[in-house]
Amino acid sequence: MQNDFDMNINSCIFCSIARDLKSEFTHLQKDSYIFNFMDKYPITFGHTLVVPKAHYESIHAMDDDEVGKLYSIVSAISKCVVKAVNADGFNIGQNNGRSANQIIPHVHVHIIPRFKHDTKNGKWPLGHARMIMSSQILH
Amino acid sequence: MQNDFDMNINSCIFCSIARDLKSEFTHLQKDSYIFNFMDKYPITFGHTLVVPKAHYESIHAMDDDEVGKLYSIVSAISKCVVKAVNADGFNIGQNNGRSANQIIPHVHVHIIPRFKHDTKNGKWPLGHARMIMSSQILH
Repeated sequence: MQNDFDMNINSCIFCSIARDLKSEFTHLQKDSYIFNFMDKYPITFGHTLVVPKAHYESIHAMDDDEVGKLYSIVSAISKCVVKAVNADGFNIGQNNGRSANQIIPHVHVHIIPRFKHDTKNGKWPLGHARMIMSSQILH
Repeated sequence: MQNDFDMNINSCIFCSIARDLKSEFTHLQKDSYIFNFMDKYPITFGHTLVVPKAHYESIHAMDDDEVGKLYSIVSAISKCVVKAVNADGFNIGQNNGRSANQIIPHVHVHIIPRFKHDTKNGKWPLGHARMIMSSQILH
């Protein structure tokens, strides 16, 4: 798997957010290595991203232990998200590479709350709800 | 999020596989806590599952550190998978609860290799290729 993005750190939107962690949608973890915020175009209500501050295009650029650390925090945050939106279930997803539909070339993990009958067949919701959510929802 | 499965450990297919790790499709990690095997109904060529031996329905039944440990191994295995099938990218996915399309109520992480133009619009491949793969592919 090769680098298939043109973007560099200077133009990375997640690095930009990491440099200015004052957004009302952004929450810095106690471990300053990670931050999380609400997805701008949520697939479902409560769709949250968890992001390492350092710029890695793919998890393959990270040490395995570092990936583990990221996901241990994803696990903790997912409990808050599910509780906050009273979800019936949740998906954890992470894309690596353009062919895997990665849009922002900076590692990020999706936490997608799910609700009974939010799709007709129980499959992945394809439509983007694009709801505007309050940052207060996770507090 | 509540338990919404009727299945118990005695009827769990992944617990059954864990009890009899002799399948040619199954590979036990050095850390005997985890095993991995090829998905029976692969979404793409090389689709692999990584599974903790212990029965947990959701990652919320696991300690956060335990989830981290699972994903550090997922990271390591994904490198082997991507290399073995010469993938252009890969998705990491994990479903929790029936409403999130979890079929087997035993925690499992999907590693889904992706290839340029394997879908028309770069989105998640919906068709199950259901290819028969050799266990040798990852060796």
